[in-house]
Amino acid sequence: MRTLTSFTRPARNYLKYIKPHGLEARRYFTPTMAGKGKLQPAARVAGRRQDVWTIVNEGAAASPKQPIVNMGQGFFGYNPPLFIIQAAQEALTKVDCNQYSPTRGRPRLKKAIADSYSPLWGRKLNPETEVTITTGANEGMLSAFMAFIEEGDEVIIFEPFFDQYISNIEMPGGKIKYVPLHPPPKGATENTSAGEWTIDFAELEAAITPRTKMIVLNTPHNPVGKVFSKEELVKIGELCVKNEIIILSDEVYDRLYYVPFTRIATLSPEFERLTLTVGSAGKNFYATGWRVGWLIGPPHLIQYVAAAHTRICYSSVSPLQEATAVGFEKADSEGFWDSAVKEMKGKMDKFNEIWKELDLPFSDPEGGYFVLVNMKKVKIPDGYPFPDHVKDRPRDFKLSWFLITEVGVAAIPPTEFYTDENAHIGEDWLRFAVCKEDEILEKAKERLMDLKKYIE
Amino acid sequence: MRTLTSFTRPARNYLKYIKPHGLEARRYFTPTMAGKGKLQPAARVAGRRQDVWTIVNEGAAASPKQPIVNMGQGFFGYNPPLFIIQAAQEALTKVDCNQYSPTRGRPRLKKAIADSYSPLWGRKLNPETEVTITTGANEGMLSAFMAFIEEGDEVIIFEPFFDQYISNIEMPGGKIKYVPLHPPPKGATENTSAGEWTIDFAELEAAITPRTKMIVLNTPHNPVGKVFSKEELVKIGELCVKNEIIILSDEVYDRLYYVPFTRIATLSPEFERLTLTVGSAGKNFYATGWRVGWLIGPPHLIQYVAAAHTRICYSSVSPLQEATAVGFEKADSEGFWDSAVKEMKGKMDKFNEIWKELDLPFSDPEGGYFVLVNMKKVKIPDGYPFPDHVKDRPRDFKLSWFLITEVGVAAIPPTEFYTDENAHIGEDWLRFAVCKEDEILEKAKERLMDLKKYIE
Repeated sequence: MRTLTSFTRPARNYLKYIKPHGLEARRYFTPTMAGKGKLQPAARVAGRRQDVWTIVNEGAAASPKQPIVNMGQGFFGYNPPLFIIQAAQEALTKVDCNQYSPTRGRPRLKKAIADSYSPLWGRKLNPETEVTITTGANEGMLSAFMAFIEEGDEVIIFEPFFDQYISNIEMPGGKIKYVPLHPPPKGATENTSAGEWTIDFAELEAAITPRTKMIVLNTPHNPVGKVFSKEELVKIGELCVKNEIIILSDEVYDRLYYVPFTRIATLSPEFERLTLTVGSAGKNFYATGWRVGWLIGPPHLIQYVAAAHTRICYSSVSPLQEATAVGFEKADSEGFWDSAVKEMKGKMDKFNEIWKELDLPFSDPEGGYFVLVNMKKVKIPDGYPFPDHVKDRPRDFKLSWFLITEVGVAAIPPTEFYTDENAHIGEDWLRFAVCKEDEILEKAKERLMDLKKYIE
Repeated sequence: MRTLTSFTRPARNYLKYIKPHGLEARRYFTPTMAGKGKLQPAARVAGRRQDVWTIVNEGAAASPKQPIVNMGQGFFGYNPPLFIIQAAQEALTKVDCNQYSPTRGRPRLKKAIADSYSPLWGRKLNPETEVTITTGANEGMLSAFMAFIEEGDEVIIFEPFFDQYISNIEMPGGKIKYVPLHPPPKGATENTSAGEWTIDFAELEAAITPRTKMIVLNTPHNPVGKVFSKEELVKIGELCVKNEIIILSDEVYDRLYYVPFTRIATLSPEFERLTLTVGSAGKNFYATGWRVGWLIGPPHLIQYVAAAHTRICYSSVSPLQEATAVGFEKADSEGFWDSAVKEMKGKMDKFNEIWKELDLPFSDPEGGYFVLVNMKKVKIPDGYPFPDHVKDRPRDFKLSWFLITEVGVAAIPPTEFYTDENAHIGEDWLRFAVCKEDEILEKAKERLMDLKKYIE
């Protein structure tokens, strides 16, 4: 092996390039290849700042309070209902359930979804032309963007946004136009409702250009917990009809709402013609690791989503599609949808009692399992030591790190879901996921009492 | 509802555009939106000719010989081994196995893969930096292209190719350079070996330009069944080193070889530095519907594949990752790899007896579960009726349709895996998948005897 200094200058530069990739990389280095840099990654995957999940996990690993109570990521702390697990176990014994499914999904699952959603749509959905199965809602949304976005087409999203939207829109060359949700004016001083996060419709209209091809809705909203009202959806829909904009409505929390829930696709045929609605078995049935999602929409949109999905993943996981079909077939007779709402709302209300004790205001969610809590009153001691990649981020990253380290509870800083320009809106809030076992929630409440001494 | 003629001209044009999308689309049509065409799909999903799978399935459904013996698509006609099914069933009872896995894959699976492949690599692979899990090999290959291909970068692939490569390369904007495998000169008149399909290295070198970023290998090869020899791989690798080209080696049939099998990554550190090796639980463990794949490679390449995968699918299916880990952990002690080879080679040889009886030459595969059979001698009766979308395709599509209709056996026309320019190479062959139950193979042989009267 040659020593470093024996390399030519381009070789040394190249070595500098691969050095950050770890010592293991060095043994692959040969001087004749140096300086060309042809192994460089595409811009779409290169050089982003460290993502929130990595930072929170790092903080959790380094915290003196072990084990951390993790209310960060929105995975469930308990299993899917037994009747669905059993359906998956049974599917695994069947030859066809272990082999490729049709690229658009298993007929049984498409039918079960069409049957389950037809009453909500107020008409009979056609499982063959109006439903397509995807590898989780995430890949479903990517498939929708891949189906319709050409280089330079614009997509409107509301801030805060689910972070995966960004790369999913940019991958096919889309440009993002951001429109902020405005927080409740009194959100820092008193309890408010997630419904008080509002759209400025003049801002929304100003974001529309002739290149606007799609808009992304998310209701119930992550991380805000807002359920968009019928009036808001009508205004949005009318703007989309006027400007011929495809509506991608991310409704993955659609079975968890605590106020009346409206699906934009169902408001008029004109809206429906433009709307792709996204759903998730992971969110509906407490199985975020199953990677089964779907889109519902008119055939002239769905067929291209299906075509894109075929090119991305080919087909989706067969035995868990089968189990999801059984989930939909039996959910009503098992009373599952009702108990899911009741159970989650119970967790939410019980957990949120802690904020009264701490005198911290929160934004009461109208749906989903996330709650935003305003921490403006929390005073972090002067000179508190933060790692470099936290120090340079907005205050909510510091709040999150501080909570993990001092209290042993992990929550997500929402400015990860904002552009730099609008990050100030989110910098005093933290997002807590309550889809955890009751004893975990109790433990979190106990620990959060340690915050008291930092609250003015 | 208005009648067609009552629409304006742009409206009528628009209607013409949506008409092929089915009658359901019409109800979404409103005249005020006509003519804009803003709902048009992106070029990447629009307007391809009908794919081979749809044509074969259509033919199968229409054939008088029911049920069709399907030797078309390469799914298994039997279940994964019991110890893996049981591992999946057990995983489904564990909370963490039903929730999100880390985006790069479950630690247990990465370790099991590193442990299983380290002896084949001749050194210890690092599961944290040199392995990443993907949603099947297909999404794994897409992740690799998304990681490294910028608009206009060139990728070399050999013809015939696995059809998904094309859209996977084009999605990030890659340009494909095709290099044909040349068939055995006597392939139409006598039995040959899949090893006799050869590369013209002058053609390969001529395909390389300064924009060549990647080359795709596939060994054992689908559909040819060729296992690339060490000498061939050395020549390819040296060209890649000389030109700094990333090697994406699709080795999904890597546990099924009937001649010595060489992995290009293991031939030298210079090659390894450039190589991403793709694997598939679906292919290894008879579970094409599980959608668990992986890439092995140096950290400076793997990290970007992992980043792309995160943006595409976020994470992969958890309970089946866990079961795949158990598959690797137990495969040796269960004698699985050896029995898999023996079993498949047995099916292959037994099935191929039929060609001697029919006096049709075949290309004896060196690996995998596909066999190419030369049907030049089969005379299709003059004026035989083919549907339009078959009539205009090369002779192998007609052979496939004819076999399905007259004999009741489905096989795949390989010109689907060629550019138009080189389609003539494949037009007399058909691809049969032998990964089916023994009685299905016997049934196929019985039926294929009906071909005799069409053979000169």
